[in-house]
Amino acid sequence: MAPPAARSPLAPERFPAIPPVAGVRFAAVAAGIRYRDRLDLMLLEVPEGSSVAGVFTRSATPGHPVLWCRKQLARGRVRALIANAGNANVFRGEEGDRAVEAEARAVAAALHCRPDEVFVASTGVIGERLPVERITARVPELVAKLRPDAIEEAARAIMTTDTFPKGSFATCRIDGVPVTIAGIAKGSGMIAPNLATMLAFIVTDARLPHAVLQALLSSAMDTSFNAITVDGDTSTSDTVLLFASNRAPHHPVREPQDSRLADFADALRAVCEDLAVQIVRDGEGAQKLVTITIEGAVDDASARRIGLTVANSPLVKTAIAGGDANWGRVVAAVGRAQEPIELAHLSVAFGGCWVARDGAAVADFDEKPIAAHLAGRAVDIRIVVGRGPGKARVWTCDLTRGYIDINAAYRS
Amino acid sequence: MAPPAARSPLAPERFPAIPPVAGVRFAAVAAGIRYRDRLDLMLLEVPEGSSVAGVFTRSATPGHPVLWCRKQLARGRVRALIANAGNANVFRGEEGDRAVEAEARAVAAALHCRPDEVFVASTGVIGERLPVERITARVPELVAKLRPDAIEEAARAIMTTDTFPKGSFATCRIDGVPVTIAGIAKGSGMIAPNLATMLAFIVTDARLPHAVLQALLSSAMDTSFNAITVDGDTSTSDTVLLFASNRAPHHPVREPQDSRLADFADALRAVCEDLAVQIVRDGEGAQKLVTITIEGAVDDASARRIGLTVANSPLVKTAIAGGDANWGRVVAAVGRAQEPIELAHLSVAFGGCWVARDGAAVADFDEKPIAAHLAGRAVDIRIVVGRGPGKARVWTCDLTRGYIDINAAYRS
Repeated sequence: MAPPAARSPLAPERFPAIPPVAGVRFAAVAAGIRYRDRLDLMLLEVPEGSSVAGVFTRSATPGHPVLWCRKQLARGRVRALIANAGNANVFRGEEGDRAVEAEARAVAAALHCRPDEVFVASTGVIGERLPVERITARVPELVAKLRPDAIEEAARAIMTTDTFPKGSFATCRIDGVPVTIAGIAKGSGMIAPNLATMLAFIVTDARLPHAVLQALLSSAMDTSFNAITVDGDTSTSDTVLLFASNRAPHHPVREPQDSRLADFADALRAVCEDLAVQIVRDGEGAQKLVTITIEGAVDDASARRIGLTVANSPLVKTAIAGGDANWGRVVAAVGRAQEPIELAHLSVAFGGCWVARDGAAVADFDEKPIAAHLAGRAVDIRIVVGRGPGKARVWTCDLTRGYIDINAAYRS
Repeated sequence: MAPPAARSPLAPERFPAIPPVAGVRFAAVAAGIRYRDRLDLMLLEVPEGSSVAGVFTRSATPGHPVLWCRKQLARGRVRALIANAGNANVFRGEEGDRAVEAEARAVAAALHCRPDEVFVASTGVIGERLPVERITARVPELVAKLRPDAIEEAARAIMTTDTFPKGSFATCRIDGVPVTIAGIAKGSGMIAPNLATMLAFIVTDARLPHAVLQALLSSAMDTSFNAITVDGDTSTSDTVLLFASNRAPHHPVREPQDSRLADFADALRAVCEDLAVQIVRDGEGAQKLVTITIEGAVDDASARRIGLTVANSPLVKTAIAGGDANWGRVVAAVGRAQEPIELAHLSVAFGGCWVARDGAAVADFDEKPIAAHLAGRAVDIRIVVGRGPGKARVWTCDLTRGYIDINAAYRS
């Protein structure tokens, strides 16, 4: 196995001081699933009467845990999540499904709940047999270790090629009552032979039924996890789950549009965005965080598609790596998105300096402030594509030799 | 400017010995448009009464020459093509359109034809002013130099980051009469600050009207130029033109489905495929040519979309660069295409050795022959996605540090 990579230069200074969330407990152990002597298995427990929402990969070859979670989500009951790193349990036929069931049964037996109340997630190498016995054997210990303040250990246990654990939280009010939202995530960086995954697990003490949670989570996706890209490769196992312990003493809220949820929706969006940007900050080989803002599109969805096309362009990403204000590549990527644009109003700015304006190059723009901006760790690209109301912000990282070196390493 | 790259290790040994095509002449000069002391401007002349077909970039930000060619194609008359390397004449507003017109007028004056019978193509840096006066000043010399056997010089004059000139030809019969097809191309590799382009110019002495030519060219695209990818970035200037001098003495053929055209259609397809694969062989940093075959899809178009998704996956391309039979990344890319597949019949082979079969990993496959296959210059990946009739073949190259080094170089 490759040695662990150095901490990303774009990593935050430290893991945030996340407060406990009423009713929610975590535990993690080193189960030796693939890695040695490091946390690789976590358990999350929520109390009876909790609700859950989820969003999963759109891959046509999803992992066995994703198939299980989709089924349980429809039933709407939840008591726990068990998640491991090192093996994604993908493409194993019936054996893979049986492994997921064995995990759920083991947790259910230890927590005295039903197996269909246990959610399962896995990340790591795909196609290899999950050593499920190493997981089930540790479940009693995990249950014994459950603590309200062990969220950072849980964040560490789902890391694969991540170079730092990712966590975020926010506090807000529902109907005047304080509520907490906390989340952890792991990145979409991928390393041979691991095909890693984007996982995000978010918890809250808010008192919200499944339908409301699901609507709020789906709405938050577009501006966060669906607005980032490292290499454009969707994983077989991408999973975002939102658990609500329903412990906060506010009045019931039954509609996602209820104005009493505006503060909560903003806070959830902020946590999702923070986790998503941390994933980009840990993109393989990343040296620069690139924020791309699209304005003037026909609608927000079109703006996001244009933004992601630019963000996925290897030519744009290598230009940023080289500190090159190559707006021609940006324009070409905008064109490739095949979304409605107004060429006569197409404009591009790097770090606030316009290099193309209203469909033509800016004559003799000053390259100095732009070169200085591109030499930094945070690069901003602003693109106006017309006069429409649609706008979006997406994040990516630069494409460097480090990405190639990590991903071309042979498996042995 | 970066020094010229070494000849691709995947290049053919030499430029083919292309025979003259009746009625067609070429010329090339070093006009100093951007490069010094190398051919960068070519002229192609066809006789009066010739026909032409074309396929252009679907980019929403096409170059000024593309806009001009689309317009002239609708008129259906042709006498010449003028093409340059070094500057793509893109994103220059009205100035860009005037430059194209100036080129067409200069050629028309020298050849005593109409400007709307002159096609124009440009490749190179985008957003900078085309020094059109350096082009128009050389037109009389180009016309004086026109020769039936100067096709290799023409192929050299459209190179940008290409490391070898690309040519191909085939002979066939229409209604028993011998006919020749010859073509040149340049690659889609891109280098700072040049955003290069895929250009292909094909000539034949066949006697075919525009509508027939257009149908045959469009049909040949799917299995050639539309079946390759280096980095997934569509250019603003991609142009494929097919010129027929109508000199061959066969009977007129008025329908593309006419069985007398079967041999010609096959030969055209072969020339297009050969040129397309040469473009991949010259992909920036390419060390390996990767041929991906998809079988069992619902139809050929779906198979091609799946194949191109695999071919565009940076994870697959870096795994190939590293000699890693990472079929998990192949499966993940197939899933990401979101085309209809049958997971229970999904199978993957490298170099003829199955590593995944009918929806699950092959237990203990022998890695040795696969490792030997992946260590070579030509890598074959065969993917069965179901039991449907759809199949496709696509080509790509591996993704190496060379690609990053070329594309992250600063413009100065």
